[in-house]
Amino acid sequence: MSFTLHSVDPSGARLGTLHLPHGDVQTPIFMPVGTQGTVKTLHPDDLHALGAQIILGNTYHLSLRPGAETVRDLGGLHTLSGWDKPILTDSGGFQVWSLAKLRKITEEGVRFQNHIDGATMMLTPERSMEIQAQLGSDIAMLFDECPPYPCDRRYAEKSLGYTLRWARRCKQWVDENNPASGSGRQSHFGIVQGSVYADLRRQCAEELAAMDFDGYAIGGVSVGEPEEEMLKAIEHSAPYLPADKPRYAMGLGTPVQLLEMIERGVDMFDCVMPTRLARHGIAMTPDGPIHIKNKKWEKDMRPLDVEGHPHVNRFSRAAIRHFFRSGEILALRLLSFQNLSFYLRLMAQARSAIAAGQFGSFKRAFISRYQANDIS
Amino acid sequence: MSFTLHSVDPSGARLGTLHLPHGDVQTPIFMPVGTQGTVKTLHPDDLHALGAQIILGNTYHLSLRPGAETVRDLGGLHTLSGWDKPILTDSGGFQVWSLAKLRKITEEGVRFQNHIDGATMMLTPERSMEIQAQLGSDIAMLFDECPPYPCDRRYAEKSLGYTLRWARRCKQWVDENNPASGSGRQSHFGIVQGSVYADLRRQCAEELAAMDFDGYAIGGVSVGEPEEEMLKAIEHSAPYLPADKPRYAMGLGTPVQLLEMIERGVDMFDCVMPTRLARHGIAMTPDGPIHIKNKKWEKDMRPLDVEGHPHVNRFSRAAIRHFFRSGEILALRLLSFQNLSFYLRLMAQARSAIAAGQFGSFKRAFISRYQANDIS
Ligand SMILES: [Zn+2]
Ligand SMILES: [Zn+2]
Repeated sequence: MSFTLHSVDPSGARLGTLHLPHGDVQTPIFMPVGTQGTVKTLHPDDLHALGAQIILGNTYHLSLRPGAETVRDLGGLHTLSGWDKPILTDSGGFQVWSLAKLRKITEEGVRFQNHIDGATMMLTPERSMEIQAQLGSDIAMLFDECPPYPCDRRYAEKSLGYTLRWARRCKQWVDENNPASGSGRQSHFGIVQGSVYADLRRQCAEELAAMDFDGYAIGGVSVGEPEEEMLKAIEHSAPYLPADKPRYAMGLGTPVQLLEMIERGVDMFDCVMPTRLARHGIAMTPDGPIHIKNKKWEKDMRPLDVEGHPHVNRFSRAAIRHFFRSGEILALRLLSFQNLSFYLRLMAQARSAIAAGQFGSFKRAFISRYQANDIS
Repeated sequence: MSFTLHSVDPSGARLGTLHLPHGDVQTPIFMPVGTQGTVKTLHPDDLHALGAQIILGNTYHLSLRPGAETVRDLGGLHTLSGWDKPILTDSGGFQVWSLAKLRKITEEGVRFQNHIDGATMMLTPERSMEIQAQLGSDIAMLFDECPPYPCDRRYAEKSLGYTLRWARRCKQWVDENNPASGSGRQSHFGIVQGSVYADLRRQCAEELAAMDFDGYAIGGVSVGEPEEEMLKAIEHSAPYLPADKPRYAMGLGTPVQLLEMIERGVDMFDCVMPTRLARHGIAMTPDGPIHIKNKKWEKDMRPLDVEGHPHVNRFSRAAIRHFFRSGEILALRLLSFQNLSFYLRLMAQARSAIAAGQFGSFKRAFISRYQANDIS
């Protein structure tokens, strides 16, 4: 992998290109989440149509079902998912933290009972890297320890110790095994932890930078902290990461949060929010969210979003409301497509604004319009 | 509407074209069922891709939700559904018969409690025609009385009386109101009832034929009768229908049954089986059905059906099995697409065989292959 940093806007926002084995990715970019090898309700043709450049797969879920060795035997995650562009896999640590039971952390790794059949399993830095190598993703995330929020200083220090020592073990496994993705080399991103403690964030960023990974993520966000703390975690991490490597804020966020983080120098995002809100009947548009179940759309013949994609705009708000209320899967497909399309368009607009050196005014205009009306 | 009968195969199978306001339909044809305005799990773009020429909408469901007047105000069922090719609507009678509660038949019509909120409603011949006019379908079905199976002679005669008198009332409503579909005239099909009684079937067919409808359906099938009785109902009806009008067997059937009915001079079919089986994890292929959940497909990298569509064949059997077991909607989409694609291809192959005057040998070859292996 290589990363080309094309320009930095006066605001701090960065414009770049990730060169990966399965294709190039223009940053800032949002990555739709394909937990079990598919972005919920969508076909890879839909993802191409809505402009996705890279998707995310979840190591925890895929290693439980169908199993990492099975995915490898089937030709890797790209073949399983029918998606031939770049894929990033997480380490599995965050899902163990949020889904598994009886979690026990030791120096070796994390022992837990999985949420499907309750079997006791062990995830270690080496096993996480091995699974991700079997999946064959373009970018693999290092196995880290994600402290909860809130978190006292003593726990944060102890947790950071795991994260840094496990990063070295991951690196050693990678150096010895040279995992591939397609016909290229798999890339590896370190994860900055340190909870709300500025000095721990800085220490972690600097130590990981010294280990020379392909990119860096800011972790320990999206764990229930207030937005202010989330942005501080970015501010306490990003400045200590090498400017010529991509930066990824994990599991975030709202459209406005994405713009705030882009301004703080973040290049990559993922979040289940667009597809999860879709399943709850919420369409995201430049004029704010629409609750499609509302009676007010019963006879509304306008499309959800006049700037949206014809695949969705074939249908009126009234029609999508009818399909949603009738339990028709088409409604979930259309809302998922719309929300991801909206996120991807936001990223494309952000890139244009950065290229023009006008990210600040773009951001203000977007937020002003997004928050102006209550159309929901 | 007009119907062009191009040729009749030595077997009795017919090749024709229906000219409808929203386009031509080549017969024999299978009509995917879009009960609530969408074929379950699929987008209209999918229906175009898999070769659908006409779909079915259900008057009972659409009149309850979103309501026939609402559909009319939204521009009709074509606009609501995003489907710009022909649509056939049923009369609502069969769904009242199978879904509603406390059904009471009188000369006026059928009083019932709907299955959504239990409200008492009335469906009459005139109201059924009015609803279908509001939906704006290309083909509307007459409101009939569908006797159960088994059914004694006395009930069958009484029921047939309703069906024939209601047919006259439907015709009168149509003559007075001239319902449209798009920029054309809505067509109307009479429905032959008469249960298992050959003389009643013949009487009904002849009386309906004398009323000169645009086409004729054979009803009272797919009500739990054995396959032998179902084929007899066709044989006791089709010969008494005008050769120059299309014939439609309602709610049927398996691939082999479709071929049997085509040989008996039937031109049009609809059935929920392909999409319903898809939701139960069954893929239909030229080599018979596949139960995708079976362990034997766990590492099978072949597509479901080598003659199938790239939209589905992007994925291995192993991948579709994984998506199905993981509860991913993509599996339902792919299986629904495959099954409808298989039905539509079967119709296209049947048309080619009829054009070549070789329907009999085509049918034998298809059945022999379809039943040869247990690949399920
Ligand atoms: Zn999120
Ligand atoms: Zn059926």
